[in-house]
Amino acid sequence: MYALANQSTTFLDGIISPKELKGLSTEQLKALGAEIRQEIVSRLNKTGGHLASNLGIVEITLGLHYVFDSPRDKILWDVGHQTYVHKMLTGRREQFETLRQYKGLSGFINPAESNHDAFVAGHSSTSVSLAVGMAIARDHQKQRHKVIAVIGDGGLTGGMALEAINHLGHLRKDVLIILNDNEMSISENVGGFSQYMKRIKETFFYEDIKIKIDHIEEMLDEVPLTPGVRDMIETVKRQAKERFDTPGIVFEKLGLNYSGPIDGHDVGAVIRALNKAKDREIPQILHVITQKGKGFGPAEQDAIKYHGVSAFSLEPPLKEKIEPAQSPKPKSKTYSEIFSEALIEIADREPSLVAITPATAEGSALVKFGKVYPDRFFDVAICEQHAVTMAAGMAKAGLKPVVSIYSTFLQRAMDQVIHDVAIMKLPVIFGIDRGGLVEDGETHQGVFDIAYLRSIPGFTVLAPKDAVELRNLLYSAIANATGPVAIRFPRDKALNADALNSGEGTKLSLLDYTKWDLLSEAGSTALIAYGSMVDVALKARDLLKEKSIDVAVVYARSAKPLDEAMLNRICKDYKRVVTLEEGCLAGGFGSAVLEWAAKRRFTNLQEKHPEIVCQGVPDQFVEHGARGILLSDVGLTPDKVAEFVRAWQSGS
Amino acid sequence: MYALANQSTTFLDGIISPKELKGLSTEQLKALGAEIRQEIVSRLNKTGGHLASNLGIVEITLGLHYVFDSPRDKILWDVGHQTYVHKMLTGRREQFETLRQYKGLSGFINPAESNHDAFVAGHSSTSVSLAVGMAIARDHQKQRHKVIAVIGDGGLTGGMALEAINHLGHLRKDVLIILNDNEMSISENVGGFSQYMKRIKETFFYEDIKIKIDHIEEMLDEVPLTPGVRDMIETVKRQAKERFDTPGIVFEKLGLNYSGPIDGHDVGAVIRALNKAKDREIPQILHVITQKGKGFGPAEQDAIKYHGVSAFSLEPPLKEKIEPAQSPKPKSKTYSEIFSEALIEIADREPSLVAITPATAEGSALVKFGKVYPDRFFDVAICEQHAVTMAAGMAKAGLKPVVSIYSTFLQRAMDQVIHDVAIMKLPVIFGIDRGGLVEDGETHQGVFDIAYLRSIPGFTVLAPKDAVELRNLLYSAIANATGPVAIRFPRDKALNADALNSGEGTKLSLLDYTKWDLLSEAGSTALIAYGSMVDVALKARDLLKEKSIDVAVVYARSAKPLDEAMLNRICKDYKRVVTLEEGCLAGGFGSAVLEWAAKRRFTNLQEKHPEIVCQGVPDQFVEHGARGILLSDVGLTPDKVAEFVRAWQSGS
Repeated sequence: MYALANQSTTFLDGIISPKELKGLSTEQLKALGAEIRQEIVSRLNKTGGHLASNLGIVEITLGLHYVFDSPRDKILWDVGHQTYVHKMLTGRREQFETLRQYKGLSGFINPAESNHDAFVAGHSSTSVSLAVGMAIARDHQKQRHKVIAVIGDGGLTGGMALEAINHLGHLRKDVLIILNDNEMSISENVGGFSQYMKRIKETFFYEDIKIKIDHIEEMLDEVPLTPGVRDMIETVKRQAKERFDTPGIVFEKLGLNYSGPIDGHDVGAVIRALNKAKDREIPQILHVITQKGKGFGPAEQDAIKYHGVSAFSLEPPLKEKIEPAQSPKPKSKTYSEIFSEALIEIADREPSLVAITPATAEGSALVKFGKVYPDRFFDVAICEQHAVTMAAGMAKAGLKPVVSIYSTFLQRAMDQVIHDVAIMKLPVIFGIDRGGLVEDGETHQGVFDIAYLRSIPGFTVLAPKDAVELRNLLYSAIANATGPVAIRFPRDKALNADALNSGEGTKLSLLDYTKWDLLSEAGSTALIAYGSMVDVALKARDLLKEKSIDVAVVYARSAKPLDEAMLNRICKDYKRVVTLEEGCLAGGFGSAVLEWAAKRRFTNLQEKHPEIVCQGVPDQFVEHGARGILLSDVGLTPDKVAEFVRAWQSGS
Repeated sequence: MYALANQSTTFLDGIISPKELKGLSTEQLKALGAEIRQEIVSRLNKTGGHLASNLGIVEITLGLHYVFDSPRDKILWDVGHQTYVHKMLTGRREQFETLRQYKGLSGFINPAESNHDAFVAGHSSTSVSLAVGMAIARDHQKQRHKVIAVIGDGGLTGGMALEAINHLGHLRKDVLIILNDNEMSISENVGGFSQYMKRIKETFFYEDIKIKIDHIEEMLDEVPLTPGVRDMIETVKRQAKERFDTPGIVFEKLGLNYSGPIDGHDVGAVIRALNKAKDREIPQILHVITQKGKGFGPAEQDAIKYHGVSAFSLEPPLKEKIEPAQSPKPKSKTYSEIFSEALIEIADREPSLVAITPATAEGSALVKFGKVYPDRFFDVAICEQHAVTMAAGMAKAGLKPVVSIYSTFLQRAMDQVIHDVAIMKLPVIFGIDRGGLVEDGETHQGVFDIAYLRSIPGFTVLAPKDAVELRNLLYSAIANATGPVAIRFPRDKALNADALNSGEGTKLSLLDYTKWDLLSEAGSTALIAYGSMVDVALKARDLLKEKSIDVAVVYARSAKPLDEAMLNRICKDYKRVVTLEEGCLAGGFGSAVLEWAAKRRFTNLQEKHPEIVCQGVPDQFVEHGARGILLSDVGLTPDKVAEFVRAWQSGS
């Protein structure tokens, strides 16, 4: 991909901890910054990872570790994927070979890795709340150190960040917020706040109005005026200038001291600004303008595309996250892509369909939908709560909203799902991306959705077994839902995507998604597999067949409602049932089957009842690593399932 | 309470729907407003309900229904407890006798009651998102009507309202936000935003700077200036005036047109402002100043206290919600009070303890804590997300934070509970108030917490059986927790509160809260009761004894972890187990027991296994009504539990 010529890393080699930074001159820090950029690009060429955001934050990170004293001073990195530079400066450079790999260096911030990581992060907009909490604790314990939140312009759109700023303005605690503003963390729909920040920068960089006022000042000097009038004019001038000298007036009004904007790639300017901020023991925000992907692609063809563009219109957008070079992206489509393409197709037939994303248009492959249907596509920024309740308003008023959202981010809108969608029984469709285990680690595991959604009255909770099913579930839900429907799918390439190229698979079909399919009947054990686990169950069946053990496989499309007719049939015909789900066992799909079975035992004591065992994600946070490795770890691979059944049947 | 002399309701009697309003003059509307106030006070004297907020919104409601055309125009009431006036004007006056009673008129807004109720509400800060969604739908469908969100200054502190305003400013849809600003919806800690709005009002009411500028203008008129200089000065003047003519500059910067503030009790002014807003097809916010409890207590002793105070310093605060006069508040303490008093006691011994509330200090009885420990008390406004993550920051930095929060509102911070508290294994204590069924209805039922909290790794989910246990659970959790602990209790008077007056009950004791208690052993059926259900189980046991049926009763303190030793013992000694919980059955406590039992059956096939049946809140939203009625409805009263056990044992 973006391979670089080998260059020296003289300065970087000398950095074992932030301490070594303190002795460097500004020029040396600049050189160090260049070395770090080069290092990141070449490292990520091998491992993949978040490239652009880390190239953009080199000087801010250098400045922070130069001016402040981590870990005594607490640096809270919002989201935490922009911390590669921070990791390199805090003794983890050598571990980059294992970045984002199983048991290797995390792609996010993680206190378990280093005491320089003040808190965990993976989701957006938490840093200011954490900073407020830590500042309160510091003052309560009569400690003296700085608490610093580093948050992007995208993170600032999240409601909880605004809640925290509001509270901070009231408390007037000594907290420094670094606003890392690169205008690129989200798609074009970035809200009034971002437009406001854009205007701040225009004011700052062009300063035309400011210059006009100075001009008036000069002209007035030449006019004969009485001292009284002159004083009055001075007042007006001062007040007018104040208006334009305060680009951060919104923050000031909320009680924060605002400074900036400054050029975030001028390490000298960053250090000067941070030193000033260090001495002010007040709530303050330093506005820093950076460029995602800064310094990237020095001598290559690609560089032509990126090199000449200005700091504020890097076009086309540099992809935030790159995949490792050695495992090229599989050509087969992902579930996200299948989902998005189906949505485009269905939107053509259904003019009331609109799509909503909370800043994950790229990740959920919805960019194309936005291009085809710009008026029916709503990227609301990192605002999961607003996204869901807005969808409820749309559905009440006659539209057919589809909310595309990662499982882990839907946690942020659970109340809205209950209070605004479910109580109103509105047919909002949730396309739950990354449902299941994901490589990003603890903060991103999509394992809770089945459990919490199925506890909500009236919810339908679906999961397709493959690409064809995903399309048809989506199509059927949009056509027939009378209440909320969630369709969850894993972050992976879609199974059976080839079937979409010809024949029946190409057609969208309506199906009764509350019914399950008995895929194969045999033996005394039935595997009831929810969504993504069908493939695992079928493969386990084949492995067992090799050992002359027959099992039945049921494809459960819906965790709620359960297909009671199918369950009754299975209970009658099988002695053992294994439920399989890519989600937490506590309260999950298997738990629903157990609840149903307990009722059946109670009302139907004469009947025979099979033994039921649930397989899924155990009661622990799952670390980062490839999905395949993680699935194996929790026992959700064909070989492990087959072995489990074999042992159970043989009583060993 | 606040009984009024009987007065005529000439105008109110003529209002069958908003249509009848349109013919009234301003003077007649004023008279109608007075009649409505009188009606509300005398009605609520009988039924209880939200008094102050409804007295405060009389003229806004009259103005809205006078100027706009509901239900064609959509009025979205934030929170929805300030809609009594709206209900009276939309054909529900006669139903007020049944206000907040089982099967009676809801205390909140509810589309099931009237097509004038555009959407359900009960939680705060949703109205702007709904309005944005409905405005998008309107424009997509080429309809023409107004969409209006009515939100309080408290609601505006909620992050999702800020997300929605941010998005609205970007979309530039025709949405009118009525900011009903009464400065009283929350406690004193109201954040930078509220302070800002206070300053807006100061600017408006004193207007001193504005007057100064006008004065300069006059003086400059007398000075000889060249046209060029005069133009320049005009520019400066315009810009300076703009600064002060725009008290809502924060909103303007976010892309909303701001107007106001206006006096929200001058119905003529309200109508004029709404008429202006009606003609502007842009996103706009109308800032209306109101006084909670306006016009209350005309001729009584109490009136002396309230009558003379200015519109902006109503002291002491009028209680937002009054209880019905005919069922006087029981003298025995509520669980909220027991919790709060214990917190004060523990805080005395534990200097690191701090308490956090998201604007529910009154409801959770924390006002006294705030007075005793003002520096250790944090009311963060209606910001559940910020509250939880701030607590995580505090815990990481060495404090012992206790978050007091209603079960239904904790739904809004589920992601923060997972991402910031649980992944970090931080000992944040959650005092979950209103855990279980509450009179407020569907939007407020605290029935999901057990299910979603127990799915989170490392969480401890406790529930006390009575007042003594609540104190000791809290004390023990604060002392010994190594990870997050939730303690949930119902909204009711505390059982066994008398024990706190003397003897052992007065002392705080450490206990192992992961262990359950076998309260009585007998018969072949065991009732395993979680928290509040212990009392029901014991009473059911007594009822059964009268029929010569013996049952055992287990007090389960923790839904997570389960007490496996106790469960094993019960499984060995009993043939039937009934789990009892005041929470949803889907994924709840009983479900956890079933999961455990399924594992036991699997690993221990030779053993005998009891039949297990789960009793709790079925899979439906529960309406409003007294807790006792609702518990009976779902089968969670002693007689119903006893009958269930009797029928089961007899096989009938």
